[in-house]
Amino acid sequence: MKPFMDKDFLLKTDAARTLYHTYAAPMPIHDYHCHVMVNEIWEDRSYDNLSQVWLSGDHYKWRAMRLNGIPEHLITGDAPDEDKFMAYARTIAAAVGNPLYHWTHLELQRYFNIYEPLNEHTAPGIWEKANRILRDGLTTRQMILMSNVKTICSTDDPADDLRYHQKLRDAGDFPVKVLPSFRPDQALDVRNPGFAAYLQRLGQAAGVVVKDLVTLKDALASRLAFFDDMGCRVSDHAFAYVPYAEADESVVAGILNRALAGGTISRGEEEQYKTHLLQYLAALYTKYGMVMQLHIGPMRRVNADMTRKLGPDTGFDSINDLCIAEPLGQFLNSLNEQGMPKTILYCLNPKDNYVLGTMLGNFADGGMAGKMQFGSAWWFNDHIDGMVQQMTALANLGMLSQFAGMLTDSRSFTSYPRFEYFRRILCNILGTWMEEGEIAPDMERVGHIVQDICCHNIERLIAR
Amino acid sequence: MKPFMDKDFLLKTDAARTLYHTYAAPMPIHDYHCHVMVNEIWEDRSYDNLSQVWLSGDHYKWRAMRLNGIPEHLITGDAPDEDKFMAYARTIAAAVGNPLYHWTHLELQRYFNIYEPLNEHTAPGIWEKANRILRDGLTTRQMILMSNVKTICSTDDPADDLRYHQKLRDAGDFPVKVLPSFRPDQALDVRNPGFAAYLQRLGQAAGVVVKDLVTLKDALASRLAFFDDMGCRVSDHAFAYVPYAEADESVVAGILNRALAGGTISRGEEEQYKTHLLQYLAALYTKYGMVMQLHIGPMRRVNADMTRKLGPDTGFDSINDLCIAEPLGQFLNSLNEQGMPKTILYCLNPKDNYVLGTMLGNFADGGMAGKMQFGSAWWFNDHIDGMVQQMTALANLGMLSQFAGMLTDSRSFTSYPRFEYFRRILCNILGTWMEEGEIAPDMERVGHIVQDICCHNIERLIAR
Amino acid sequence: MKPFMDKDFLLKTDAARTLYHTYAAPMPIHDYHCHVMVNEIWEDRSYDNLSQVWLSGDHYKWRAMRLNGIPEHLITGDAPDEDKFMAYARTIAAAVGNPLYHWTHLELQRYFNIYEPLNEHTAPGIWEKANRILRDGLTTRQMILMSNVKTICSTDDPADDLRYHQKLRDAGDFPVKVLPSFRPDQALDVRNPGFAAYLQRLGQAAGVVVKDLVTLKDALASRLAFFDDMGCRVSDHAFAYVPYAEADESVVAGILNRALAGGTISRGEEEQYKTHLLQYLAALYTKYGMVMQLHIGPMRRVNADMTRKLGPDTGFDSINDLCIAEPLGQFLNSLNEQGMPKTILYCLNPKDNYVLGTMLGNFADGGMAGKMQFGSAWWFNDHIDGMVQQMTALANLGMLSQFAGMLTDSRSFTSYPRFEYFRRILCNILGTWMEEGEIAPDMERVGHIVQDICCHNIERLIAR
Repeated sequence: MKPFMDKDFLLKTDAARTLYHTYAAPMPIHDYHCHVMVNEIWEDRSYDNLSQVWLSGDHYKWRAMRLNGIPEHLITGDAPDEDKFMAYARTIAAAVGNPLYHWTHLELQRYFNIYEPLNEHTAPGIWEKANRILRDGLTTRQMILMSNVKTICSTDDPADDLRYHQKLRDAGDFPVKVLPSFRPDQALDVRNPGFAAYLQRLGQAAGVVVKDLVTLKDALASRLAFFDDMGCRVSDHAFAYVPYAEADESVVAGILNRALAGGTISRGEEEQYKTHLLQYLAALYTKYGMVMQLHIGPMRRVNADMTRKLGPDTGFDSINDLCIAEPLGQFLNSLNEQGMPKTILYCLNPKDNYVLGTMLGNFADGGMAGKMQFGSAWWFNDHIDGMVQQMTALANLGMLSQFAGMLTDSRSFTSYPRFEYFRRILCNILGTWMEEGEIAPDMERVGHIVQDICCHNIERLIAR
Repeated sequence: MKPFMDKDFLLKTDAARTLYHTYAAPMPIHDYHCHVMVNEIWEDRSYDNLSQVWLSGDHYKWRAMRLNGIPEHLITGDAPDEDKFMAYARTIAAAVGNPLYHWTHLELQRYFNIYEPLNEHTAPGIWEKANRILRDGLTTRQMILMSNVKTICSTDDPADDLRYHQKLRDAGDFPVKVLPSFRPDQALDVRNPGFAAYLQRLGQAAGVVVKDLVTLKDALASRLAFFDDMGCRVSDHAFAYVPYAEADESVVAGILNRALAGGTISRGEEEQYKTHLLQYLAALYTKYGMVMQLHIGPMRRVNADMTRKLGPDTGFDSINDLCIAEPLGQFLNSLNEQGMPKTILYCLNPKDNYVLGTMLGNFADGGMAGKMQFGSAWWFNDHIDGMVQQMTALANLGMLSQFAGMLTDSRSFTSYPRFEYFRRILCNILGTWMEEGEIAPDMERVGHIVQDICCHNIERLIAR
Repeated sequence: MKPFMDKDFLLKTDAARTLYHTYAAPMPIHDYHCHVMVNEIWEDRSYDNLSQVWLSGDHYKWRAMRLNGIPEHLITGDAPDEDKFMAYARTIAAAVGNPLYHWTHLELQRYFNIYEPLNEHTAPGIWEKANRILRDGLTTRQMILMSNVKTICSTDDPADDLRYHQKLRDAGDFPVKVLPSFRPDQALDVRNPGFAAYLQRLGQAAGVVVKDLVTLKDALASRLAFFDDMGCRVSDHAFAYVPYAEADESVVAGILNRALAGGTISRGEEEQYKTHLLQYLAALYTKYGMVMQLHIGPMRRVNADMTRKLGPDTGFDSINDLCIAEPLGQFLNSLNEQGMPKTILYCLNPKDNYVLGTMLGNFADGGMAGKMQFGSAWWFNDHIDGMVQQMTALANLGMLSQFAGMLTDSRSFTSYPRFEYFRRILCNILGTWMEEGEIAPDMERVGHIVQDICCHNIERLIAR
């Protein structure tokens, strides 16, 4: 029996172990998509205990606890932090096969030097030891530096003033690039009751009165220029499916005017509006050399009752299953006609791995290898099986060696071991192929492919 | 080469073998969803030969034989039982990789002490030996008792008088609980030509003249109360997709009146009617603490010609591929607003594993761990790959340890080795993880998880 | 570490090795679906260099090169052949996990006796050695004969005069059957701008003026009779999804008349027209005992710009994700009512493996084992994972032993090692099952199943 999660965790062959330890492990981290609060970096937040680190904002963990029958007051409620941690410890001990199980133990190992399994018996000792380390100075910046992180791309609304990004830049004493990302979902969400109010806010940020399509575009362009000035290299959009419905600019302008006046917008009109705006934004992304990320496939806030109580992004989302290929293909083709930005396509439903994995090939050109990327296994797929499926799909259908690789997509500063997790899985895939005689036993070549996927490809993709 | 289907069949590591033999194998069986004829338990049916046991009602076997080119008279026709058995033996010998191959050999081993592979050469000897054992007293009750079965939930129409359940209860001499399940598909199938006639039958069973929505609800409530009194703990519903279309009660009442009068009902009206009735029934299930099972995804009776000749459920069904996530999520949310019953969601299309596996998390709450379940790999997925996919999806997305586990879904009394098959696969998954150092080497804890999945979780779910 | 792609490539157990080397390897090849140019067989085309063999018409390779950032002039442009080859060598060295990687090396081994991995360092030597062998007489016919091919079914338009098939038959000196296949996609594509012009061409080939539905049917029947006379045993149809929309013959006739007059045809009318025509053709296929192939699931020519520049089938197609089950089931049922031809169903989206794998069972009858087939993993699925998924789906859901097996679907005469690839994968699946004790250790029986899948089943299917 292999020891529990030791240094060769997930590495099943000699070739895999060499690829990981020699080539992958030393590589720095560029976390090009995450949801951390930048003020917590600026302020170099410190923590009293593990519950603050793990349980104050992580809906993955909340969801697992609910599935394990933990009452809500021990999850998002007002129970003491220690009780919440004990409830989480019980949950994790039962969460065999869930990525939280591995993430939790990797985080205990890497940040706290704790190698025993977390369960109801070990929890009190782990609580003491980890909290001591936290109070001894394991702050946000310390976590980032220990993890060999070089770049962090946060996720920001165009109306955000990016003040903490600015402060970090002005101070100039933190050796990690903390860059904003441009996520204008609210500007596209024309049927949202808060849409008109949001556009006002956006306009204020841009110094533009948003009253029609022209001024909306001006405001977005102005904010994107500001984001670009602040170092932004990636944008991000979320969709249940990517729509495609061409309409004359005058039609779109009319839809927007109606929405601004509080009128009702149909599903078809929403598609026309979104298509037009996204084409407009894509042209700007192309101009600035920014990467356009499209996250496709969630069904959000399914539980209305809990959403009313806790708000969005609290663990009540799941996987949608719409037919996405045709509108996505048509939309991307429309961008190709006007000039395709660098693009990353993510799917939440693993049935779509083969749709996205083949979509890349439709728009590859000799201008840049890996210009259109199949995004790393996302959210509900961010586990061994999901990553293996995404990477083998990409390999089967195209060029795994051009893959831009991993990101945390996380709200937590102890999530960087997910890169290690990813790298072990990647090296195990390639190492197994080599061990089985399925690829040439050229360790240096394959090692360089590993390093490209871990680091160099994304550096190239987000380079100016 | 490992011996053919020996005691360590499917168990590839020491940890897997320990988990299976020490923890899983001794557990009793609660078959909480099946299609056995309860009169055959009451009458303690005896059998002359293996064809009566295996081929008289099992459309899985018929289907395999047709695919193997066996003419229909040797399948459902009037050929002698021995000839049918020989045709089945030829088919099984060629059915490598099909679960029937494993099921058939497990059944020969467990009920007949026969360990040789079935094929055209061994078939005559097996026919003799097995038939002798059958005639020596291997009756229905004997099969059930040999299999360590403690609970059987049959599947029953609300109009059924449950007379054999009653007789078994009155006699009180059979130590296995034989409970009815409430399956009101015909009461929901408003576009079926036989709908109005069925509602009459239902009304007669309930002592109510069903003439409108109010009396229909009365009749269903009355029958459910009777089922509850007879020990019913689970209901069951079958859908190509779960619809969601809210409508005022008066609209639904109008649809029903039209259907009772023989009028035409549109697809949209059918959705409104089903949504309303299912919400009504779900409230009753909640009241009685019954489990609501939703079986999602078949395309039934695809071959009209054979359906005309042989009737439904004769092997001419296949897997549908509709988009199920949005209406299912909206429907479940509507139940959540009124009070969610304990629920099990089954999908027939394995593409939906990730949709259902994430749906659970939307409605988990602290009231009860495992209150919403992802049902075991169903029908066309009831094989090694299907079970591995369902269980690893559940583990990746939530809490495998809360899984309610296996059921036969079978019409046959020799199907209980499917539990053994399931348990071997489960133990192999967990044992492999432990052997690879991916979960902590805590055999007792993992052994208890195995026993929970094999037995305790379903006991808790169907408890009063 | 196993040697790189040696004689036991992909064969992981003793049983697998025995099955492959003893049973599978000696079997001849019937390539019952491919896209070779028959004139190149008739003329016994010779080649100056590897680029002519590999890169002059293979959009799989072009696509991989584009994904690797190779500029178009080194792919389909006017760069020198040697430069193109060097660009391909660089691409292949980076294409780990892509089937092109294995195909390329198998082709180097089998046709050129070259066993070193292709990369930028080895490319010059391989270029020299392979070109010498080509110029020394490795012609088209030589490639076919070396590969133990017995039957080639090309893919032909009904308007084609099949002159090269005729010449081959008249000469009678080439010991391989080269048969046409009937692919009337253009006659069904009623919304294509070139539709009316195509029907004229079809009419000329048939000696019929196509002016309405009656004369169109006459022309198709006439061409099919000619194809039958030329040895045609299979037809082929391509669909994003198989439509089903019944309409009176007069309605269909009206749709056709409008299309012939240049009028606009709706999507619904297209479905009616296609349903009717395909039913008509299926009756003819039944009459001639021809196999009807339905290829389901691509999204073609997604990149309009590159399609304008390079034409169709140049590497800008991908996988669609429509819901296909219900119309396909209804359409096949309509054929079943009139008499079902032998049929092969292919899916491009692997999510549809379980839909097609269960569809077979709906229409199996005792008339012929394997009359309806689940086609081998197609196009974007033609790799290890795709073949394993297709074959295990088929085994789980039906009778793998009745599978008609592999085809190249290729435009190249060096693609026959794809049969070897398939056979290794098949033997590894069956050998692993045997080694694990999951199927009876009856090597001869399983060996015969292997030979049936490699050769005898397809011989039976395309027999007159």
